[in-house]
Amino acid sequence: MGMESERLFIGIDLGGTKIASALVDADMRMIDRVRVPTRPEEGPSAVIGRMLDTVRDLTARKGCDVSDVRAIGIGCPGPLDQRTGIVLDAPNLMWKDVSLAAPIARATGRPVYLENDANVAALAENRLGAGRGAKHMMYVTVSTGIGSGLILGGKLYVGATGAAGELGHVTMLPDGPLCGCGNRGCLESLASGTAIARRAREIAVRPGGEGILKAARGDVNAIDASLVASAAASGDAAAAAIMRDAFEYLGIAVANVVNLLNLDMVVIGGGVARVGDALFCAVRRLVELRSFACMARDVLIVPASLGDDAGALGAACYAAEALACEEQRGMGC
Amino acid sequence: MGMESERLFIGIDLGGTKIASALVDADMRMIDRVRVPTRPEEGPSAVIGRMLDTVRDLTARKGCDVSDVRAIGIGCPGPLDQRTGIVLDAPNLMWKDVSLAAPIARATGRPVYLENDANVAALAENRLGAGRGAKHMMYVTVSTGIGSGLILGGKLYVGATGAAGELGHVTMLPDGPLCGCGNRGCLESLASGTAIARRAREIAVRPGGEGILKAARGDVNAIDASLVASAAASGDAAAAAIMRDAFEYLGIAVANVVNLLNLDMVVIGGGVARVGDALFCAVRRLVELRSFACMARDVLIVPASLGDDAGALGAACYAAEALACEEQRGMGC
Repeated sequence: MGMESERLFIGIDLGGTKIASALVDADMRMIDRVRVPTRPEEGPSAVIGRMLDTVRDLTARKGCDVSDVRAIGIGCPGPLDQRTGIVLDAPNLMWKDVSLAAPIARATGRPVYLENDANVAALAENRLGAGRGAKHMMYVTVSTGIGSGLILGGKLYVGATGAAGELGHVTMLPDGPLCGCGNRGCLESLASGTAIARRAREIAVRPGGEGILKAARGDVNAIDASLVASAAASGDAAAAAIMRDAFEYLGIAVANVVNLLNLDMVVIGGGVARVGDALFCAVRRLVELRSFACMARDVLIVPASLGDDAGALGAACYAAEALACEEQRGMGC
Repeated sequence: MGMESERLFIGIDLGGTKIASALVDADMRMIDRVRVPTRPEEGPSAVIGRMLDTVRDLTARKGCDVSDVRAIGIGCPGPLDQRTGIVLDAPNLMWKDVSLAAPIARATGRPVYLENDANVAALAENRLGAGRGAKHMMYVTVSTGIGSGLILGGKLYVGATGAAGELGHVTMLPDGPLCGCGNRGCLESLASGTAIARRAREIAVRPGGEGILKAARGDVNAIDASLVASAAASGDAAAAAIMRDAFEYLGIAVANVVNLLNLDMVVIGGGVARVGDALFCAVRRLVELRSFACMARDVLIVPASLGDDAGALGAACYAAEALACEEQRGMGC
């Protein structure tokens, strides 16, 4: 039997392909983690069932009970209603208006807190990762899409209705490519992994694109962002130009936020950020070029350090902080 | 003789052409105001002397003494060091590293607080003006330049080193016009009064620009933003196109901040905003078009309401809040 005094928390990162859950102690140290496929095609209740399985697995393996867990945090694709725990619209889960916090709370008897996945990852990187100690920080994840989360004044900033942090959908090129959100020329449509792959597929069938096509063994559909990154790293000029253009847009977007928010740190993660220097040097150069010198000087631009654990750890942090906040309020503070 | 219990505050708005000072009560109600020319060419000590004259005038006219004033706030062009009260670089005052708070504090014996002019105007509009009740608000002033200030979570947001809020210098067009800050394609270089006038002067001497040139009585140098606005209002197509382009850039910049910060209000003031509907309709349309629907729906975009008093009132608000904050801290809260 576990003891209440252990103060355990569970964080669940609900993604389109996998559910990643983590059991942590009161200091947010990872005790155990588990991963299962999401299989959204089976519908919300099957997915929620698998989320509950991860909670049972984690507690059983630790030799304790779900009642030993103080709270459960969930990071999931937004937009969502934090207050009611409802996922409003998550295309990659095929969910619309799905009540997520309530069934998990009912099944476990524990308080459950829901927050956007990029926001909880931002919180994790700020509390436990590369952004530790930063008071004003932006976390950006560049993978198939581009998400972001803001820590302002040491706290997660979610804005008027909880939807803040959509750096992926700032307009960088007013007449640019159509974005999934319906707008044109969003950062996501120009600098995400999907955008890099799309551009490379266009270039691959034109003069100059032979190197990319060869890297894809002649199959245009096999071209993805990591293939473009590899081709660029091997010296292919067309691939390098595609990456450079994408990072230039990302760098300008970051420089703009630095000018607006005078951040002390920008933490960049996600699959595309694994290319490393090519991305970070470009972003740092653009910030130096386009942000005010006094603000460019004071902002660190660094790779995320928690990798795939950021979501689950962040969800656990979020639950722990939300619970502490509620308890304080209950004591009349 | 005044009474301590009156709790008076003075706010001073230090601009390149005029010093505007206001005496307010504890509820930030304007008791009296005074305006004198800045005459920066006479040097910092002459300017500081004139600022002190306004303090003496305001208290003398009220029949009280400077010692009855609880604190003095100063809004001035940045960048500046709030902590040491030094103006680091104010081109339109021709000041570099001028200690401003200390000499005013020495001469008056009152605590003096220094903050950026756009930031104090944002505070005034939020506490007393069009932005009253907004928790997450951006104030934008569009005149010769473009400045902005942020109220986030009900508090003035100044960022890591106090320099936040440079919306005028977000890059909107990477290869756009050279901006005074050294960057290219800043919002200020595309949508400020100066930018509108510059563009109109270029157009005026080309085919299609005859209407603008005529409105300026043939004198290209007489073209300023308000002349372009009048010509546009009288139906001149070239002038209307110039205004439309400027407001489109402004609208995209605002839409981007809405997506990033999920604001509940955007308050726009400054000389150029006096054109009214042409600007506000354009900005609202761009936010609807380019921000997420859930965030566009929840943000009000409204004209500033305090006009030329925003700076002095905001400086007084800032001083009152800074003093209250220090007193609370002194009591161990």
